[in-house]
Amino acid sequence: MSNITEIHLSDSRELFYFDDAPGKDRSAVDERGLPHVTSTSERRWDNLAGEWVVIAGHRQSRTFLPPTDQCPLCPTRDADHRTEIPAPDYDVVVFENRFPSLSVASTGESAVDGLFDTEPGNGRCEVVCFTSDHNGAFSQLPPERVRTVLDALSNRTEALGRIPGVEYVFAFENRGEEIGVTLSHPHGQIYAYPFVPPRMERTRQALRGYHEATGECLQCALLAAEQAAGARIVEKGTHFTAYVPFAARWPYEVMIVPHRHVPDLPALNEDELAELAELYPSVLRRFDGLFEQPAPYIAGWQQAPVRAGREQWHLALQVFSIRRAPGKLKYLAGSESGAAVWINDIAPEKAAAALRGEN
Amino acid sequence: MSNITEIHLSDSRELFYFDDAPGKDRSAVDERGLPHVTSTSERRWDNLAGEWVVIAGHRQSRTFLPPTDQCPLCPTRDADHRTEIPAPDYDVVVFENRFPSLSVASTGESAVDGLFDTEPGNGRCEVVCFTSDHNGAFSQLPPERVRTVLDALSNRTEALGRIPGVEYVFAFENRGEEIGVTLSHPHGQIYAYPFVPPRMERTRQALRGYHEATGECLQCALLAAEQAAGARIVEKGTHFTAYVPFAARWPYEVMIVPHRHVPDLPALNEDELAELAELYPSVLRRFDGLFEQPAPYIAGWQQAPVRAGREQWHLALQVFSIRRAPGKLKYLAGSESGAAVWINDIAPEKAAAALRGEN
Repeated sequence: MSNITEIHLSDSRELFYFDDAPGKDRSAVDERGLPHVTSTSERRWDNLAGEWVVIAGHRQSRTFLPPTDQCPLCPTRDADHRTEIPAPDYDVVVFENRFPSLSVASTGESAVDGLFDTEPGNGRCEVVCFTSDHNGAFSQLPPERVRTVLDALSNRTEALGRIPGVEYVFAFENRGEEIGVTLSHPHGQIYAYPFVPPRMERTRQALRGYHEATGECLQCALLAAEQAAGARIVEKGTHFTAYVPFAARWPYEVMIVPHRHVPDLPALNEDELAELAELYPSVLRRFDGLFEQPAPYIAGWQQAPVRAGREQWHLALQVFSIRRAPGKLKYLAGSESGAAVWINDIAPEKAAAALRGEN
Repeated sequence: MSNITEIHLSDSRELFYFDDAPGKDRSAVDERGLPHVTSTSERRWDNLAGEWVVIAGHRQSRTFLPPTDQCPLCPTRDADHRTEIPAPDYDVVVFENRFPSLSVASTGESAVDGLFDTEPGNGRCEVVCFTSDHNGAFSQLPPERVRTVLDALSNRTEALGRIPGVEYVFAFENRGEEIGVTLSHPHGQIYAYPFVPPRMERTRQALRGYHEATGECLQCALLAAEQAAGARIVEKGTHFTAYVPFAARWPYEVMIVPHRHVPDLPALNEDELAELAELYPSVLRRFDGLFEQPAPYIAGWQQAPVRAGREQWHLALQVFSIRRAPGKLKYLAGSESGAAVWINDIAPEKAAAALRGEN
């Protein structure tokens, strides 16, 4: 991709402009003179769960729902309102989070004694601005812009995977105050974790187990079975199918799965990216169409880990909403948060019908 | 325990009065003539996660924040306001949930084909009313009443564990509208699952692995290490210690662990129950004391499974709040809900100091 310009912000963080087309002036300088933010992030091993937990004590004071005229993700339109993006306009921008949960410069401790194991919270957290329009939405972007976002995510997936110690790159969007989004400007995030996240580790083991037993890919098999069953299909393309998973955890949940067995975003070809740039926002618009108000949702790319189990991995985009009815949210309470048993009150077949617009 | 009276509600559900002392008249009859509610609940196997998910489509229409004068958990004080509890007063009451996520009478399907495996949502969901006082709180109950609640949970743990197919009994309390509680009357719940919940299954494997490697109990070892470290201790008794776990996931999280290696509530002795009846609400009051408003919290009993790994299991009560600051909640967004990586913004040592009242 040729339309990338890299600059450094005043506190030395990296920022990348990804432009829909070449020829834009991206020479503006960040003149805020920001102090360098230190990350004390660390990860601690939860012995009883067998999982890492990230402790990021420095993040408590991060920016929280600022007024629109102080949005740090808008471009810098005048010298009195300098933002994270020095340019007066942009298409797509990616930069290091000023209050990262994970950082290669983390000063967190390393101590291993078998019961209380700590490592620095190494990794990287980036912010992805989808548009300079503060009131826009990913679902409303034209396909050319979605394509630029996908190119940016693909580019960053490769770049972050090359950082020593990074084992997984997770690109996602949180949308809606209902799920705690602190900045309303349309944006996503990328977390580069120093371990394979528990959710993806379980998927990795499931893919490996199925492959050992059958010689096939479990995601390919599930995709074929969903296409044959039909009841949970939401939208079908030439290269991707969107369906509500058979055992959906969330009231409205969709998996967008490429027909070709590919591990991650960088492996997608031109035809696939072109279709995805239309199908992805189309699925989001289906979520927004469910009730009278925009749907709070989380969209996350389940890509292959940087190293472990790449050949067996099959890319998928998971999109889910916590809204179960107008004015009603799905909360994670005792069963989900205490025991990790999800109770879903909406049958996946009904959810698919609603997302297809049938009721 | 001798002060138990069993009756049946008008739709044939079981209800148990647990009284602080004997001699109460519990002969009142449910005259509502309720129709029988059918459960279509099923559990579906999530192949990619290797976990069961419960699909309970019939629950969407359940009671949602009714006005106080229609609270179904208050006693039946007059014939115009008949509730779930026929008696005009009660101490502690346990009854089958009218809209259960799991039911032994579930009509859900059973179908196994390797990719789309379904079983009926067998099991049982019960409601535990802690007091007839609609505006009360578990944290404010006198020790005698907490003791009756503990006796009730213990009794139901044994009874539910005897139901064929039940593999785990999870007793918990959700408190606060912030976590989606639909009835504000002080109450808890008991879920009898037809499988060991994923969270407890991971703990079971961790306990087994540690025992195989060292011959010791991991929970005993963690407890001793926490007592030696001191920084995360919240409250220390003769028989129990309350501490913030080293790798806490939630802004404020406490484990209340018995010093004796016991598998579940029925295994506690008189001295332990007496201390727990004071220490448990004391810890809850510490949560309420953190900010200017009552803390939304989840409290869940991590008991041994009905069959698997009982000898190695060590009972613990987990209490956690999603409030991270006044007016600010911890939301589960992309990292937690999409990748199962918890990011905790409050260092466990600081949380423990705050819960001890030190800042």
